[in-house]
Amino acid sequence: MRRRIVVIGGLVAGPSAASKAKRVNPDAEVILFEQSDHISYGICEIPYFIQGIIKDERQLIAYTPEQLKEKKGVDVKIRHRVEKILPTKRKLVVRDLEKDDLIEFSYDKAIIATGSRSRRLNIPNEDSLNVFTVKSYVDGLKIKEYLANEQPKKAVLIGGGYIGMEMSEALAGRGVDVTILHRSEYPMAGLEPETRQAVASKLVEKGVHFVPGVQAEAFTCKKGSPSSKARVGRVLTNKGTFDCDLVILSLGVEPNCSLARDAGVSLGATGAIRTDEKQLTRTDNIYAAGDCCEVKNLVNDRPMYLPLATVASKAAWVAGENAAGGRALLRGAIRAVAVKVFDLEVAQVGLGTEEARESGFDVATEVIRSNSRVPFMPGSKELTVKIIIDKKSKRVLGANLFGGEGAALRANTLAIAIQHKLTVDEVSELDLIYAPPFSPLWDPILVAANVSKKTWKDKPFRARQ
Amino acid sequence: MRRRIVVIGGLVAGPSAASKAKRVNPDAEVILFEQSDHISYGICEIPYFIQGIIKDERQLIAYTPEQLKEKKGVDVKIRHRVEKILPTKRKLVVRDLEKDDLIEFSYDKAIIATGSRSRRLNIPNEDSLNVFTVKSYVDGLKIKEYLANEQPKKAVLIGGGYIGMEMSEALAGRGVDVTILHRSEYPMAGLEPETRQAVASKLVEKGVHFVPGVQAEAFTCKKGSPSSKARVGRVLTNKGTFDCDLVILSLGVEPNCSLARDAGVSLGATGAIRTDEKQLTRTDNIYAAGDCCEVKNLVNDRPMYLPLATVASKAAWVAGENAAGGRALLRGAIRAVAVKVFDLEVAQVGLGTEEARESGFDVATEVIRSNSRVPFMPGSKELTVKIIIDKKSKRVLGANLFGGEGAALRANTLAIAIQHKLTVDEVSELDLIYAPPFSPLWDPILVAANVSKKTWKDKPFRARQ
Repeated sequence: MRRRIVVIGGLVAGPSAASKAKRVNPDAEVILFEQSDHISYGICEIPYFIQGIIKDERQLIAYTPEQLKEKKGVDVKIRHRVEKILPTKRKLVVRDLEKDDLIEFSYDKAIIATGSRSRRLNIPNEDSLNVFTVKSYVDGLKIKEYLANEQPKKAVLIGGGYIGMEMSEALAGRGVDVTILHRSEYPMAGLEPETRQAVASKLVEKGVHFVPGVQAEAFTCKKGSPSSKARVGRVLTNKGTFDCDLVILSLGVEPNCSLARDAGVSLGATGAIRTDEKQLTRTDNIYAAGDCCEVKNLVNDRPMYLPLATVASKAAWVAGENAAGGRALLRGAIRAVAVKVFDLEVAQVGLGTEEARESGFDVATEVIRSNSRVPFMPGSKELTVKIIIDKKSKRVLGANLFGGEGAALRANTLAIAIQHKLTVDEVSELDLIYAPPFSPLWDPILVAANVSKKTWKDKPFRARQ
Repeated sequence: MRRRIVVIGGLVAGPSAASKAKRVNPDAEVILFEQSDHISYGICEIPYFIQGIIKDERQLIAYTPEQLKEKKGVDVKIRHRVEKILPTKRKLVVRDLEKDDLIEFSYDKAIIATGSRSRRLNIPNEDSLNVFTVKSYVDGLKIKEYLANEQPKKAVLIGGGYIGMEMSEALAGRGVDVTILHRSEYPMAGLEPETRQAVASKLVEKGVHFVPGVQAEAFTCKKGSPSSKARVGRVLTNKGTFDCDLVILSLGVEPNCSLARDAGVSLGATGAIRTDEKQLTRTDNIYAAGDCCEVKNLVNDRPMYLPLATVASKAAWVAGENAAGGRALLRGAIRAVAVKVFDLEVAQVGLGTEEARESGFDVATEVIRSNSRVPFMPGSKELTVKIIIDKKSKRVLGANLFGGEGAALRANTLAIAIQHKLTVDEVSELDLIYAPPFSPLWDPILVAANVSKKTWKDKPFRARQ
């Protein structure tokens, strides 16, 4: 009997898992179900597509359904919505959205890759024509079309997280006046206060209106727009009213787990699907991968919700390999993220200070300002490193880096240190590159480690005579 | 009794060691001897100074003798040449070059930081006015002055190593026609063939004449130049004659060890001073640091000669702290170097393939071509990673990276993997950043690790049924 592997969801994790399964076990039948028209595209590139830096929407798509079939041997069924998983029968109930038929598919192994959806406000008029999320290929096309056709002058972004930052730059880059309404004092929750302040300053410097402490309460529509084509013209908030021609909801995402939950697949405390290191759920024969899942945080060994393409891809390979009969593990992730806020590079790796405290570490932090290159070399930019340490073990738990260049790639170097539980002493002993066009004699990473090491040396020096 | 610490040599390691010693033990008397007029400057910046990218020669100098005294409390004696170390008497014999007096200085601890010198050809007319090395602050001033005053049109660089590459760009950037005469087929001995070929191509692309397989045999002087101001006009070689107005010897460096050797301080097989992890030589009370020393290669656990400012600085801190009565260790280095060859970034970390073989590893290599950012993002450049692995343990032993951007900082990430003996499997499991302006979904490091992992997986896949 041919093994049949079904994959539910076609964005990032689904196609990766399906391709991997087929590669690992070429005899298997691998079927991927996707309810929309499109599969396998990059969400992270959409702000750059909207800004016009990426010109061609076809560049956003890694594989069309036909290509995934042809190149990877995956049987792709778009416009098919999986409505039920019946784990005991090992069957899926699938709606063919074109024919509006319900079909049953039996499976040997299933991989849930239902991803995430944008959070919403659930306030009046949120479904208006000019209120967008940035969560799908079609969202990208729609926003770009709206910008081209309607020439909006004022945009209100609700939520100052990663997508909020990227969309600010994208819209400002197209000459749109941008206002960010954010619930707390500084943008980018989860980052350190120093980083968040630097991001806020950069927004102001670039002419973006950042309004803190705002709760959006309702949208009101422009007069004269027929109700079927209602356009929001104002955002009503606890801090007053903001005019707009365009609204972007950038409130973050939450896992799409209802299908899994309804099938009795166990969710974790984060609200996302719980899996083991093989990406196997607690339900027999059902794997899961991507934004619908939790992943183990390797720094504090706790489950976390980390909806990132990197983790999704790794988890997908593991789920695909295991579903195909192979053997692979994803031990976890540390959280390694970066964003460009205009000309400011911002990166975070590992735990934040508060998160580290909540995880039970005895936390110390150190902030250093250094340079991306030898300071008097042209192109050298200021770079700030905040390093978060466990005082007891001296382990590096996390870091924020921000500055004009080299923050993201340097964060990767600290990412390994964090993932492999190096102490600040070990980081200070790293042999790193010095070359005037690339790095000062003491790389900012070493400066951060050296300063922390000194601060957290327990005993003052006593000369041995 | 105040502890007296004497430091011999004032370039990089000397001032660092002296400052550290004084910081660690403020009661100590710390005296630094330097035979020239200048201390504490960056050699690595000199090509950029010559090119004019760094405008002001004062930027090359970290501390003047007065500043080192004032800010760090180090007693600096410039124009003082240490002529002998008498270890049993714990004395230095020092010549005051101004007064031409011999003075004796007793010491409790001595730190040898005599550095390195440029290799020379020892061929006729090598001491002519227009034959330069790039090894000191004064060398930099002289070359820049010569360029300004004499407007040379043709330069011959002998030796295609790091300094040769940087000087090619510096001189070409000033409109000088540059020819590199190099002994072997490709520039940059010690790098991988793929890297060396890429560098050679870049030189050709940028109009530099790279001539392989050349042995310089003699210089002939231009007619009419008085013998006291003889200027070389031709380089005679086994491959013919090369006209020039300027010659740069860029043949690499060798350790300055005669003072140490004459004092009975033990040298290693590399020809440089042997020390333990405390930077203590085999002679009581004498430490050493910098380009005059060996350092342990942490990848193959063998002593190596690695004359780099990074290692010199770390060794200097250790020597200074220990000489002051503290306790510090330098476990070793892995070799982490980078150079910009016009718009090509080139980096090496860890062992090369040949070196790894000679060290007894069962070597495998993998070369991957990837991109510095998401490929269709503007500014994305091709990036090549060659990874060198021990087949038995699957440890990453070394890597070369080259490309348009991000080679040096990514090499640092692999540097940690090498220093902490990670396997390719562990590297492939690293949680690294993906963000379109900084990195593709799979960072080139992960691509290299994933490909190597597949290649060196021992057994072909068998599905478990």
